Amino acid sequence: MNKKKIVCIISGGMDSVTLLYKAIKEHNVASALSYNYGQRHSRELEFAKENCYKLGVEHKIIDLTSVQQCMRGSALTDTDNVDVPKGHYADETMKMTVVPNRNMIMISIAVAEAVSKSADTVWYGAHSGDHAIYPDCRKEFIEKLSEVTKIANYQSVTVEAPFIDIDKGDIAIIGKELKVDYKMTHTCYEGHADPCGKCGACVERAEAMKKAGITDPLVNA
Amino acid sequence: MNKKKIVCIISGGMDSVTLLYKAIKEHNVASALSYNYGQRHSRELEFAKENCYKLGVEHKIIDLTSVQQCMRGSALTDTDNVDVPKGHYADETMKMTVVPNRNMIMISIAVAEAVSKSADTVWYGAHSGDHAIYPDCRKEFIEKLSEVTKIANYQSVTVEAPFIDIDKGDIAIIGKELKVDYKMTHTCYEGHADPCGKCGACVERAEAMKKAGITDPLVNA
Repeated sequence: MNKKKIVCIISGGMDSVTLLYKAIKEHNVASALSYNYGQRHSRELEFAKENCYKLGVEHKIIDLTSVQQCMRGSALTDTDNVDVPKGHYADETMKMTVVPNRNMIMISIAVAEAVSKSADTVWYGAHSGDHAIYPDCRKEFIEKLSEVTKIANYQSVTVEAPFIDIDKGDIAIIGKELKVDYKMTHTCYEGHADPCGKCGACVERAEAMKKAGITDPLVNA
Repeated sequence: MNKKKIVCIISGGMDSVTLLYKAIKEHNVASALSYNYGQRHSRELEFAKENCYKLGVEHKIIDLTSVQQCMRGSALTDTDNVDVPKGHYADETMKMTVVPNRNMIMISIAVAEAVSKSADTVWYGAHSGDHAIYPDCRKEFIEKLSEVTKIANYQSVTVEAPFIDIDKGDIAIIGKELKVDYKMTHTCYEGHADPCGKCGACVERAEAMKKAGITDPLVNA
């Protein structure tokens, strides 16, 4: 297999941290990018940083707080006006956690980083469970976006979401094999250090850990 | 003609200011966005602001200076290491003024703004003269990008570059008709208040003014 040179988008959540472990094992990682867009759960950025440090990967945190003024109406960024909904991801209320055009913005910046580093690929952690809610986690989105990033610069860049066909439980199974330390991953949308256990992100994390047979070190710390 | 609701990307240069005048005349403008990405010519942002104020359009300046760390190698942003080339735009050296993935990043954020404002369209000022140098000013780029922005959010957004088939001289002719005050537009890549007259941007501006029969108020102030 030809090794890719990858810029990896890492939020500090369990999906993207597992993705980084996978990228390091299978390819060359040029750098990892995280974004501060004023999300409630900015605590996850600390985990992103710590994982990169531990794994010896160059890590950049991109400050997008100024972009917040263009991202109104989401429970994750519009903290003055919108509460985080409780319950399962698939619920209609979870649509409130959609941040306008978030993935396209993050990927566009990662593509700039790829061009600067002469990297050929951008990875991000969308998975099959995201589809129901997030339009920018669908296969169609990734494919069409990649058609753009191949021609947007002199350097062609491909966008991939290696977990797009598997669910969070399968990701946890892969992470178990890669010896990901899930104590160093954050999930809760509310921004609590320990999972709140009630928001969509926490409910999904618990289900995934169960499927992989992992005792969540955050819950049982 | 059905009126569009437009988010307009405005740099403060003559192309985008003319575009804003056109958008106001023909459609509804939701807001105008400018970006500070650490460019040498950030002075143009002042002109963007003043034009919006004069025209009664809500204006937001998005601070992308943090993204600079992903945009190395361009003469416009990598001010420590790369000089601005002199001469005509079409020259090979002008490739040094390409900022990695700049338009895709700016448009992605404008699409977020469009979603937040329930606007259906994003306009930006690419024109036919840009094609030779900037991959992200080509028709193919715009078409493929628009395919993405139509499906990236619950709200479909179309990206358009109304000047894509005309050159800077034609834009100046339109601007003359729309009574654009070109004293309030900035062009020089070097960031001088008056055009340096030597960089590609200044050379093109002078040619355009000549074609439209305008005496450049900046040169002859």
